[in-house]
Amino acid sequence: MINSSNRITDLVIEAHEIFINSSEAKEQAQENKTPPGVILENLGDEDVKITRVRITSPTGEAAIGKPMGNYITLEVPRLREDDTQINEKTIDYMSKELISLLQLKDNSTILVIGLGNWNVTPDALGPKVISNLMVTKHLLEYVPEHVDKGVRPVCAVSPGVLGITGIETGEIVKGIVDRVKPDVLIAIDALAARSMERVSTTIQIADTGIAPGGGVGNKRMEISKSTVGMPVIAIGVPTVVDAATLTNDAIDLVIDSMIKEAPEGTDFYNMLKNLDRDQKYSLLKESLNPFVGHLIVTPKEIDDIINRVSKVVANGLNMALHQGISLKDVDNYIN
Amino acid sequence: MINSSNRITDLVIEAHEIFINSSEAKEQAQENKTPPGVILENLGDEDVKITRVRITSPTGEAAIGKPMGNYITLEVPRLREDDTQINEKTIDYMSKELISLLQLKDNSTILVIGLGNWNVTPDALGPKVISNLMVTKHLLEYVPEHVDKGVRPVCAVSPGVLGITGIETGEIVKGIVDRVKPDVLIAIDALAARSMERVSTTIQIADTGIAPGGGVGNKRMEISKSTVGMPVIAIGVPTVVDAATLTNDAIDLVIDSMIKEAPEGTDFYNMLKNLDRDQKYSLLKESLNPFVGHLIVTPKEIDDIINRVSKVVANGLNMALHQGISLKDVDNYIN
Amino acid sequence: MINSSNRITDLVIEAHEIFINSSEAKEQAQENKTPPGVILENLGDEDVKITRVRITSPTGEAAIGKPMGNYITLEVPRLREDDTQINEKTIDYMSKELISLLQLKDNSTILVIGLGNWNVTPDALGPKVISNLMVTKHLLEYVPEHVDKGVRPVCAVSPGVLGITGIETGEIVKGIVDRVKPDVLIAIDALAARSMERVSTTIQIADTGIAPGGGVGNKRMEISKSTVGMPVIAIGVPTVVDAATLTNDAIDLVIDSMIKEAPEGTDFYNMLKNLDRDQKYSLLKESLNPFVGHLIVTPKEIDDIINRVSKVVANGLNMALHQGISLKDVDNYIN
Amino acid sequence: MINSSNRITDLVIEAHEIFINSSEAKEQAQENKTPPGVILENLGDEDVKITRVRITSPTGEAAIGKPMGNYITLEVPRLREDDTQINEKTIDYMSKELISLLQLKDNSTILVIGLGNWNVTPDALGPKVISNLMVTKHLLEYVPEHVDKGVRPVCAVSPGVLGITGIETGEIVKGIVDRVKPDVLIAIDALAARSMERVSTTIQIADTGIAPGGGVGNKRMEISKSTVGMPVIAIGVPTVVDAATLTNDAIDLVIDSMIKEAPEGTDFYNMLKNLDRDQKYSLLKESLNPFVGHLIVTPKEIDDIINRVSKVVANGLNMALHQGISLKDVDNYIN
Repeated sequence: MINSSNRITDLVIEAHEIFINSSEAKEQAQENKTPPGVILENLGDEDVKITRVRITSPTGEAAIGKPMGNYITLEVPRLREDDTQINEKTIDYMSKELISLLQLKDNSTILVIGLGNWNVTPDALGPKVISNLMVTKHLLEYVPEHVDKGVRPVCAVSPGVLGITGIETGEIVKGIVDRVKPDVLIAIDALAARSMERVSTTIQIADTGIAPGGGVGNKRMEISKSTVGMPVIAIGVPTVVDAATLTNDAIDLVIDSMIKEAPEGTDFYNMLKNLDRDQKYSLLKESLNPFVGHLIVTPKEIDDIINRVSKVVANGLNMALHQGISLKDVDNYIN
Repeated sequence: MINSSNRITDLVIEAHEIFINSSEAKEQAQENKTPPGVILENLGDEDVKITRVRITSPTGEAAIGKPMGNYITLEVPRLREDDTQINEKTIDYMSKELISLLQLKDNSTILVIGLGNWNVTPDALGPKVISNLMVTKHLLEYVPEHVDKGVRPVCAVSPGVLGITGIETGEIVKGIVDRVKPDVLIAIDALAARSMERVSTTIQIADTGIAPGGGVGNKRMEISKSTVGMPVIAIGVPTVVDAATLTNDAIDLVIDSMIKEAPEGTDFYNMLKNLDRDQKYSLLKESLNPFVGHLIVTPKEIDDIINRVSKVVANGLNMALHQGISLKDVDNYIN
Repeated sequence: MINSSNRITDLVIEAHEIFINSSEAKEQAQENKTPPGVILENLGDEDVKITRVRITSPTGEAAIGKPMGNYITLEVPRLREDDTQINEKTIDYMSKELISLLQLKDNSTILVIGLGNWNVTPDALGPKVISNLMVTKHLLEYVPEHVDKGVRPVCAVSPGVLGITGIETGEIVKGIVDRVKPDVLIAIDALAARSMERVSTTIQIADTGIAPGGGVGNKRMEISKSTVGMPVIAIGVPTVVDAATLTNDAIDLVIDSMIKEAPEGTDFYNMLKNLDRDQKYSLLKESLNPFVGHLIVTPKEIDDIINRVSKVVANGLNMALHQGISLKDVDNYIN
Repeated sequence: MINSSNRITDLVIEAHEIFINSSEAKEQAQENKTPPGVILENLGDEDVKITRVRITSPTGEAAIGKPMGNYITLEVPRLREDDTQINEKTIDYMSKELISLLQLKDNSTILVIGLGNWNVTPDALGPKVISNLMVTKHLLEYVPEHVDKGVRPVCAVSPGVLGITGIETGEIVKGIVDRVKPDVLIAIDALAARSMERVSTTIQIADTGIAPGGGVGNKRMEISKSTVGMPVIAIGVPTVVDAATLTNDAIDLVIDSMIKEAPEGTDFYNMLKNLDRDQKYSLLKESLNPFVGHLIVTPKEIDDIINRVSKVVANGLNMALHQGISLKDVDNYIN
């Protein structure tokens, strides 16, 4: 669910970059600048850049601002182009990362949750992934003779959002989990990024659980291994940048450039240094009035992009959750 | 969920008619023909005909083929016309019947379930009613100051169907009920009728519970007061006639007319009498091959009709579930 | 546009079958029974049966009830299954038949018209084909450097139906043709079949022009070579059977079977013979009342089937209209 | 069609404000600042502010940057709230302005064109207005006895956009106009505004014609009285702000505020003055890279807002184009 107003970024690689550029990191003057308690590993190739971030201690947690656990990020700048080869490569890399993270048994039951609001285009990613997913649990129960070998029992629900159901999404998910008792829970969600470059080109996989609709009320119900008793994998794709974030970042760029040219120590230099924190936000809010906090920036073609990226994410899951299935078999299972 | 193949009709008034026309009823040669254990009451007017059927004993249950309980049927032949006055009258009558059946307290929490498949036009009635419903539970929790007096906490979910989720719908509903613990559960569903005249002109309200996707497998999970511990109200609107039913009924009409003209006692008279049960179905299946059991008959304008009837049913609910709310206020709560 | 009430069938192969079974054909006692002025050719294989019908004279025209010209029918019983191999084979055969019929030049401009009502599921085939079509005319004009070699200028419009626009569809098409001046006009339309077996398994291609919305009023505007001055190809797929047709055919089956068993010459035999024409239709209408002429029979999964068949037809066109393009390239041109 | 990148604003009242704030206007130091050749008239009330701008000479045309003619703007800050009373007031004011501008005869035929791309949410306003419009021309021709007195012949088409059809939209419109020969042409389009405050709260009506997809290629075909021979009314509602415009305006606000505080004549003051034109845009583009020119800013609820505003605009038209029709009658004509 897109709800970026009160958090800096949903993406761990952006949170890590913010740390790297922060005064704290600069003061430590480290070689590689990655904070203690954080392990970084780079993989992939020029088309699909893979970053594995492992936050291993409370120190790392504090530095990055994200809970301890594994975060895998796929960056695919050409994912927007709908190029068949790039899509298939992304699906391939994504499924391999998932397979290694999930460690499924042959008969593991998987419940996939598509978070977000299907009536709000950039928030509909989760439900759209669900509609491209191979749902097989009922087939294995009722017509096992029509199911290919290697297919695992997968079930899937798009629970809606608080504004549609009137119920905390976490409550709905918990209720269904209690009945289905899956071995693994996977949640798909649209995210907000800080940079437009990441919108619809980045896929983040994490094993740290989810807090659907975080921030809407004070009762948020976290869904994680500690609350539901099974591994919880979150898969997110940024689909928007918050307009206030975008504008704020653009202004920072301009001010940074002016600071560089101002003679250090002068009154003006100091004014610029202070300006950042004092006046900028109020000015900004004035220009975005009366929509502050609800305005989003998206590519004009967002409807189309969401449809296409949803298929890639669904197929990454389809290839990871079943054995011996190829992309050509998927259509036989989708209705 | 539309799944008419293995039941005669979803509508109690049709089941009652079938009994009236059956040999059993004729042999009893009763005055009013309504079987023992069944109480009939007619209300309404020429625009909205209301029939209250009460099945009070196992005898009545066996005669009609429906479980004991209250069944209210609104027949509105002009509901297809989208006439504002007829729609408002239907909403008014429907809400009054519901109010009297529900006996809500001021602070009763109501969970409304929209059954059916949103990807199949005539089966999408339930989910479409949900999207026109005043969902208020979260507003009363988080922004009570913005909610009109008399508004009750209503929440709503469209759980999908087995083919979409891979999970028995009854399991999903049970899971959510366990978390939300509503005082009343209301389930909306598209039905199959026996006669085209009833399609999209009839609303049936019953307090006997539901068995979502009845007949798909052998694990059907009934949702009723005895299984969930709270009153369960089912609201259904017929949106299709099964093609096999329609054709069969048409053939019966022709055969009945021939029987009338054949001299009683002749070989041919007997052949006609026997034909009904022997050959008709196999011939029928031949003509419908290869689609038997999946073919439906609908008005061509079904997409449009479903949209309009869904709004009427939703507003009947909106008027029944909240106090002091008028149709003009509804839009302020729908998003 | 689906409007079957006043014509026997849209399909030439069904019209030919009706002739074969008619008394006229039986009286002529011909060997192959195909009437004079009609040439039949069978091709294809067990998956895709191809029938080329050529009506060459007014005699043939009168026998079949369709105008002189070429009719190609692809029958693909497994087209409903969404099997990748069957789909690709159908696309391949369809494109080859079209290439041979169209005789395009390297720079021929093609205008494709998607007839039908996008708000009525089974009538939306034409508009859905358009949305899966490689539209290239503007690219060749503005960014020719980004267009693959062999791509021809294709443009496409879904003009809507009289009930949506208030304008005769033929008038809109004629207006656009006058401005675009294409070398070939191709019109896609949903058809009504007589037999459920043909629904969504049959593709008919004809070079005899179209009369959109035929029968709605008395002003129908034919679009054919003689009225617009360029070849007009019509591609149709049956998506429904008219409910009256289906029921009538089912009753005929039952009556035929009874006639076989009745002793010839008896009163009853004669009654059955007469019944067919006298009473059947009025009884039939009674059972379908009050919807006669608007009721359609479709598979329950029609929304899904229309989506899938539209893609096959669109790709048959994409492969036929451009040279050196493969199915993998198509996505780069669809938005 | 939303295509804001190469024009300052689609709204005349914003263009007028830009002139008022420009150096030219300030140098002239006029009392009311409205340039010669421009006549301004304010009407309406606190809910619906109406501004009539009349550009009467080439001088006015040059000052405002819009062609000579009449421009009526309705500003309704609460139009986003979906308040029934506000909506009805807007419909009432809008229809009265249209009636006075259109000067229709009793039997005038009106063709309404819904411009824009139905697949791109904020660009779908035009097509959505069409689907809420009373289309009556065919009813008056075929079933005049079912049409209320005072209803004029209205027909309507959504011609799509160049990227969907491959044809210049102006060509399609011209082709249809040539066949239908309406007395008045009305075109509906989504616009880009400069300020978020105007998005989905402002309706602009102009009698100066349209240039659909202006700027896409070099062949734009203007549709105006001089090219089609009948009055052409354009109705537009801003649905987005271009992201580059928004960010640029936000930065200007910050810089203006710094200029105010910098001592005039100092180097820094001069640097700020120059910065505006030199570096800002390139920095800005860097931050928006790689999406410059395609990024839009919208309220997150844009899907919902477009649906609601489309209904208001359509009903403003319905009330203006027909006599003696009330809002309650409209539903009888919409399908």
